Amino acid sequence: MDINQYSNQQLQSWEQELGARYRQIQGAGLKLDLTRGKPSTAQVTLADGLDGVLAGDFLLPDGTDTRNYGGLEGIMPARELGGEILGVAPELVLAGDNSSLTLMYHYLLHAYFYGVRGPDSAWRHEENPKFIALVPGYDRHFGICEDLGIQMINVGFTDKGPDMDRVEALVRDDPSIKGMWCVPKYSNPTGHTYSDAVVARIAALGTVAGPHFRIIWDNAYAVHDLDDTPPRLINLMDLARQQGTEDTVVMVASTSKITFAGAGVAFLASSAENLKAFKKHLGVFSIGPDKVNQLRHVRFLQGYQGLRAHMRRHAELVRPKFELVDKHLEEALGGTGMGAWTRPRGGYFVSFDAHPGLAREIIRLAGEAGVKLTPAGATFPYGKDPEDCNIRLAPTYPSLEELDQAMGVFTLCVKLATARQRLGKV
Amino acid sequence: MDINQYSNQQLQSWEQELGARYRQIQGAGLKLDLTRGKPSTAQVTLADGLDGVLAGDFLLPDGTDTRNYGGLEGIMPARELGGEILGVAPELVLAGDNSSLTLMYHYLLHAYFYGVRGPDSAWRHEENPKFIALVPGYDRHFGICEDLGIQMINVGFTDKGPDMDRVEALVRDDPSIKGMWCVPKYSNPTGHTYSDAVVARIAALGTVAGPHFRIIWDNAYAVHDLDDTPPRLINLMDLARQQGTEDTVVMVASTSKITFAGAGVAFLASSAENLKAFKKHLGVFSIGPDKVNQLRHVRFLQGYQGLRAHMRRHAELVRPKFELVDKHLEEALGGTGMGAWTRPRGGYFVSFDAHPGLAREIIRLAGEAGVKLTPAGATFPYGKDPEDCNIRLAPTYPSLEELDQAMGVFTLCVKLATARQRLGKV
Repeated sequence: MDINQYSNQQLQSWEQELGARYRQIQGAGLKLDLTRGKPSTAQVTLADGLDGVLAGDFLLPDGTDTRNYGGLEGIMPARELGGEILGVAPELVLAGDNSSLTLMYHYLLHAYFYGVRGPDSAWRHEENPKFIALVPGYDRHFGICEDLGIQMINVGFTDKGPDMDRVEALVRDDPSIKGMWCVPKYSNPTGHTYSDAVVARIAALGTVAGPHFRIIWDNAYAVHDLDDTPPRLINLMDLARQQGTEDTVVMVASTSKITFAGAGVAFLASSAENLKAFKKHLGVFSIGPDKVNQLRHVRFLQGYQGLRAHMRRHAELVRPKFELVDKHLEEALGGTGMGAWTRPRGGYFVSFDAHPGLAREIIRLAGEAGVKLTPAGATFPYGKDPEDCNIRLAPTYPSLEELDQAMGVFTLCVKLATARQRLGKV
Repeated sequence: MDINQYSNQQLQSWEQELGARYRQIQGAGLKLDLTRGKPSTAQVTLADGLDGVLAGDFLLPDGTDTRNYGGLEGIMPARELGGEILGVAPELVLAGDNSSLTLMYHYLLHAYFYGVRGPDSAWRHEENPKFIALVPGYDRHFGICEDLGIQMINVGFTDKGPDMDRVEALVRDDPSIKGMWCVPKYSNPTGHTYSDAVVARIAALGTVAGPHFRIIWDNAYAVHDLDDTPPRLINLMDLARQQGTEDTVVMVASTSKITFAGAGVAFLASSAENLKAFKKHLGVFSIGPDKVNQLRHVRFLQGYQGLRAHMRRHAELVRPKFELVDKHLEEALGGTGMGAWTRPRGGYFVSFDAHPGLAREIIRLAGEAGVKLTPAGATFPYGKDPEDCNIRLAPTYPSLEELDQAMGVFTLCVKLATARQRLGKV
C-alpha cells in the first residue's frame, strides 16, 4: 500500500509498531557493515594462484627481466590485457601499480599543475578551473578535485547516463570547465551503463569545450557483469577518434576487483600525445611499476578469455547478494512510495533514494541498530547531497547471512524514518 | 710516473701510442654499459624465493587479509622491517610500494604544493624556495626539485660528508632554503659515509633554518655493505630528537637493491606529526600499498638478521667488481696525477674525478669505443658540472669479464684525453 494513502491514525499506530521492532533490534548487538565496495574473502581467494604462478621464470619472451629496473609503461603483455579491458590498442595503454585512483590523481595533477601540453597549458592558470561531477558519484573522484582546488558542478543522470543536455550546455558556455568524471559502466553508485547515444555525445564534447578538456573515463567495472547478457558499453575512444577528440579521453581500469584488491594492476589509456606528456611526468618520480606483479597477472589470468572466465566465478558469488538486496527492497518497500532503487546488472553498488530529507536520518537509525552505511552525502561533491536522499548500499563484502540481517534492518529504518517524517517528527 | 713530469716530446709519442690502441679498440665492436646502478641478474636471482613464499597464507597474525583493501601505512611487520633498516620505531614508518623515489617526490610535492602544516605552510608561497644539493649527487633527487621549480644551491663534500660550514652558513642566512638532499651512507656517487660529527650538525640545522625545513635522508644503501666491518652511520633521528628538530627529518629506504629492483618495498620514516600530515596527502589518491608484496618480503627475508644474511650474499657478488674497478684505476692511473677516485666500502658507485674540463671528453671517447658511461654532468643539478670533471662508474650490472674490458677502455680514454689536454688538443 502506498504510504500516501495512510491516514494519520494508521501512520501513528504503524510508527509505534515499527519503533517497537526497531528497539528490539537495537538490543540485539548487531555489527554489520554495508559501507565499502570491497570484494568478499571468497572473491579474493579466487586469485590465490597468483602467488607462485611464476615458478621461477621472471623473463618476458623478449628477454626482459621483470625483476630488474626499467620500463615506465609496464610490460607489453600487461598493456595488452589492459587494452582488451578498455578496448584500445596496447600502445596506448600504460600498465601501472595497484591503483587506478593513483593514476587518475596523477593525470589530474599533471593537467592542473604541470600542464598536458607544457607549463602554459596548466589548468591552474585559469582563474577558476571547474569539473563536472555526475551525481550521485564516487567520493574519491570528488576528493581529487577538492584536493587540487578544482570547483565541481553537479549534473544528474537520466536512465541512459549523464544528463547530456545539461552537460553540453555547461561545457559550451564555460571554457573553464576542464573535464568530467565518468564511471560509464555500472556507474558508482547508480549502476547505470551509458547508452550509445550518450557516449557519442560525450565523445563530441571536445568539439565545443575549452582547451585541454579531459573526460576521466573510469571503467572500474568494465568486466564486472552479473549475468551473461550484460549491457553493452560502446567504445568512447573509437567515437572520439572519429570526432578528432581523442586527446580528451583518459581511460582507466584495474584488476583490483578481478584479482586482489590492493595488489592488482591498474591501467591508463589515452591518445599517443597525451601518453607521451604524461610519461614525462611519471618519469620524474618513477623508474617503473612492479613488473613482476604484472607478469604474475598475465600468467595467472591467461589472456582476456581467461579473465572473462574468472569474472564468471566472481559473478556466481556476487549475484546472489544483489538478488537478496533487491528481494528485501521489493518485499518491504515495493509499491509503497517510500523509496526508489536501482537494479544493476553488475558493478558493486545499489543506489537507494529515500524521500528527500531522510538519508541522514535513515543512516543514523541503521547505525544505532548496528548496521553501518556509507555516510550521507558521500556520493556528492563536498559531502553535500542537496536533497539528503541518496544512500549507497555495498552488498559484496558481507556474507549472505549478514546481508540478510543488514537489509532487514535497513528497510525497517527506511519505514520508520518515513513514517516519522509524515508525522512531522523528523 | 706523474704526468706533470712528462716532456712535450714524451707526451706526443705517448699520445700517438694511446691513439693507436684506442683505434684498435674502436674496431672491436664492444657494447658495454657502466651507466646504471642496477643489480646484476645473479643478485636479483637471490630473491627468486619471494614468488610463492606465501604458500596460500595471505593473513597477518592479527587477521588482516593482505589481499583486500585498506591500510594506508602498510602492514605492521613490513613497517617493523623498515624501522630496523632506518633505525626508528615502526610507528614512525610507512611501508609503501616499490619506490622510495616516489615517496620522496610525494613528500616534496606535499611540502611544496599542499604544505606540511596546512595550506599556509606550503613552500610555494615563498618567493624563491631553494634546496641544498650536495654535489656530486643523485640526478633523480635534483630532477624532483627541478620539476617543482625549487632552485638548487650546490655544496660540496669533505671526506667526512657534506661541507657543513658552508651548509650552516647558507641555511642560517637564507630562510627560503627549505631543505637538503642527503645519501648519508655510501653516498651516490662518492661513496662517503657521513661522520658522527657531520650527522650531529645536520640534526641541528633545524634550530637555525627557516620554517618547515626538511632533510631528505635517502638511506638507499643502509645495508649494502661490502665487508663485515662497515663504517657506522649514526642515527639522525635520535640526534634530532635531542635537539627537538625531528620534524626536519624525512628518512627513506627500500628493498629495491635487496630483493627485486622495481618490485620491492619502500619505506618513509618521519616524526609522528609529519606522518599524520603526509598520510592525509597520500589518502587522497591511495587506498593503500600492495600489502601482499609486503607480506612476501616479511616472510622471505625473515626479519632483520635474515636481511643482513641476504645482504652478505649480495656482497659476495658485488665486492669482486668494486675490487676490479679499483685494480684497473690503481694500475693504470695510480700515482700519475691523472685522476682521483673513491674506494667505497658499499653502495653502488665509484666516483672518478678527471682533470677539470675532461669528463665530457672521456665519456665521448669511451662511448665511441663502445663503453657507455653516465652522461657528463648527470651528478649535478641541471646536468651542469661546473668543473666538467666528475664521472660516475656503476660496476654492479656487467659481468666481471665485461667490467674488465670496460675498465680497460675507460682508463685508456682517461689517459688519452689527459695527454691531448696537455698538448692543447682538447
